[in-house]
Amino acid sequence: MHGLQAKAEPARVKSALSTNAVKPGKSGRMTQTSFTLHASDGRARTGVISTPRGDIRTPAFMPVGTAATVKAMLPESVRETGADILLGNTYHLMLRPTAERIDRLGGLHVFMNWQRPILTDSGGFQVMSLASLRKLTEQGVSFKSHIDGSKHMLSPERSMEIQRLLGSDIVMCFDECPALPADRDRIAESMELSMRWAARSKAAFGDRPGHMLFGIQQGGLEQDLRQQSAEALREIGFDGYAIGGLAVGEGQEAMFGCLDFAPGQLPEDRPRYLMGVGKPDDIVGAVARGVDMMDCVLPSRSGRTGQVFTRLGQLNIKNARHQDDPRPLDEDCGCPTCRNYSRAYLHHVFRSQEIISSMLLTWHNLHYYQELMDGMRTAIAKGGFAQWASEFHALRAQGDIDPL
Amino acid sequence: MHGLQAKAEPARVKSALSTNAVKPGKSGRMTQTSFTLHASDGRARTGVISTPRGDIRTPAFMPVGTAATVKAMLPESVRETGADILLGNTYHLMLRPTAERIDRLGGLHVFMNWQRPILTDSGGFQVMSLASLRKLTEQGVSFKSHIDGSKHMLSPERSMEIQRLLGSDIVMCFDECPALPADRDRIAESMELSMRWAARSKAAFGDRPGHMLFGIQQGGLEQDLRQQSAEALREIGFDGYAIGGLAVGEGQEAMFGCLDFAPGQLPEDRPRYLMGVGKPDDIVGAVARGVDMMDCVLPSRSGRTGQVFTRLGQLNIKNARHQDDPRPLDEDCGCPTCRNYSRAYLHHVFRSQEIISSMLLTWHNLHYYQELMDGMRTAIAKGGFAQWASEFHALRAQGDIDPL
Repeated sequence: MHGLQAKAEPARVKSALSTNAVKPGKSGRMTQTSFTLHASDGRARTGVISTPRGDIRTPAFMPVGTAATVKAMLPESVRETGADILLGNTYHLMLRPTAERIDRLGGLHVFMNWQRPILTDSGGFQVMSLASLRKLTEQGVSFKSHIDGSKHMLSPERSMEIQRLLGSDIVMCFDECPALPADRDRIAESMELSMRWAARSKAAFGDRPGHMLFGIQQGGLEQDLRQQSAEALREIGFDGYAIGGLAVGEGQEAMFGCLDFAPGQLPEDRPRYLMGVGKPDDIVGAVARGVDMMDCVLPSRSGRTGQVFTRLGQLNIKNARHQDDPRPLDEDCGCPTCRNYSRAYLHHVFRSQEIISSMLLTWHNLHYYQELMDGMRTAIAKGGFAQWASEFHALRAQGDIDPL
Repeated sequence: MHGLQAKAEPARVKSALSTNAVKPGKSGRMTQTSFTLHASDGRARTGVISTPRGDIRTPAFMPVGTAATVKAMLPESVRETGADILLGNTYHLMLRPTAERIDRLGGLHVFMNWQRPILTDSGGFQVMSLASLRKLTEQGVSFKSHIDGSKHMLSPERSMEIQRLLGSDIVMCFDECPALPADRDRIAESMELSMRWAARSKAAFGDRPGHMLFGIQQGGLEQDLRQQSAEALREIGFDGYAIGGLAVGEGQEAMFGCLDFAPGQLPEDRPRYLMGVGKPDDIVGAVARGVDMMDCVLPSRSGRTGQVFTRLGQLNIKNARHQDDPRPLDEDCGCPTCRNYSRAYLHHVFRSQEIISSMLLTWHNLHYYQELMDGMRTAIAKGGFAQWASEFHALRAQGDIDPL
């Protein structure tokens, strides 16, 4: 459905990728979305997803805007951190203010004042984690709202309808995802259901130029189930492929173990999206294994709880060691928080439960995440990813600066 | 201590004011602060207070930055609304993070990233309204912190010390203010104590070029007590004069009754500051009666509770009538909230308890207040204040736009 644009080939583009990169889409015309790989280094890759609403530089980190806002941030500030795309949550938005209302108001982009690309999840994951009285059938999931107890249902068809009403640029298939650990039979059964739902999602999505539909690979940590899932998805055919069912409690080692094979099971010429990941070192490890896109609430949620990410690891602004410290969170960070505020101030406003604490710490954390992505993109383009990753780990191993 | 600069005299400046406006300060030199009246219209006046940190256009509304932040706003956003000066609270800051800590960190301006003028109150009012186990003596007030129960004391000398440590540009005398209604004896006794404290405040303040010290008139609603208080303050001599002890429960009619005489009891050539006021129509009525400066938590606090001020009065964004309304709060408002967000969105994020709701509504309210002040300054300069005020009241009488 979407073609891959041929672009000037940087020195380090692998031949396998550049060959794929000139294949036109099935329709034979240059459609309004594309994925162009610019370079790869080991299994890490950098490129651009183009959409009518703007380009998404990959590897990309997508801040989460659950209820039509990235919490404690104005959208123009989110953009200033370097984000090319936001994630919106179908489950939350369908309950409040409802997809129909957002549609009447001109769609999610207008509603929340973010004109760049938006990816929406399918609602499947959060129905399982948030809703009550869930009933799962072949048709879909019925449930009660965690907000007001009202009854709702989600199915592949309804999820596609909601994501269309929202005006999402990148739509996710409706899937089911069991928490790990789960036994192999349960994982296989769930994966197979998700693959049937993927086919129904594709059929319900239809032909929507300028919008992309991503399939979601399932199969837990089982290589053969992941392979079956990948084959089923490739057979259906998607504009991008997500790796689902990870970051659900399995731990980094198990997740990396899975990422050692899962991305390679997916088409090389389509974006690969690892859902719900993660900590900075999770992200670096995922990119090293061929992942192109990620999302996580961690930088924004941590901003509200006083947890700060810097090149030197993590710090807790609530700690008394910061109360007289005139230094910024990170001397080398260019974000407004680090340019204008001391640790002492951030400690004070956090302790005083002032809203500006969430605003400034979220801004810093999102800025840090985007700088991380930018650093990786540059390093991959130069063929220096391994060295970059080694410096990343060495800096973090130092830990936060000493107290004064 | 501070001279009054002679400026080009606009057509409508009253002769009495322009005569005052060329009197040099006692020292005979042009000091670093000044108050210049540019025009008056009836009893309403417009001018500029100049300080080394910037000019304050009067009539001025000062947003309140209690704990070293105007809640839910970045300081650059507060400036964008048109604010020339912020108010900081001595009581809150002395308890947390403490004045000594702020001093070590470079002062309140650096600490909170606001380089323009700051006025600090004396702490007296909030000790009486917030602290527990208060003990009032001739020396001052001892009390327990409402945050952690720790013991503290405030006196004229300690309040001057704290405000110096904070680096305040406009320092307020330490005073005592009884809640209204109170009997005349209590009001007289309290006023007399405040006048003795005013003299001690002046002595403790000393000579601080570039900083201003304001006296505070007390006396409740009693014209003769207010007159005694004004005479006592003029005898001591201050850079500006506040009208204290109003907006403490007496109602608008009683307050306006007092403002019919109180400003005229104070020197014409010094700024007059009405403390803790108020609603938009309170502000307009105060300016009409000769007030130059005001502060109030109302626009920022209302922003957090969903109360919105527009030219057409007040609205509650929580109301279901807004849930499908694509219109901005005010079609004619130029603030970022009105330029970019619908009532429907603001309703949604308020109902969802999202931080952006407080951010956007506070921004709008502060912008509205500053536009109100700007409208009055322009009208006074043109000699059209009465007509401006009549249009202000007529628009508000219309009430909010009809539901769709």
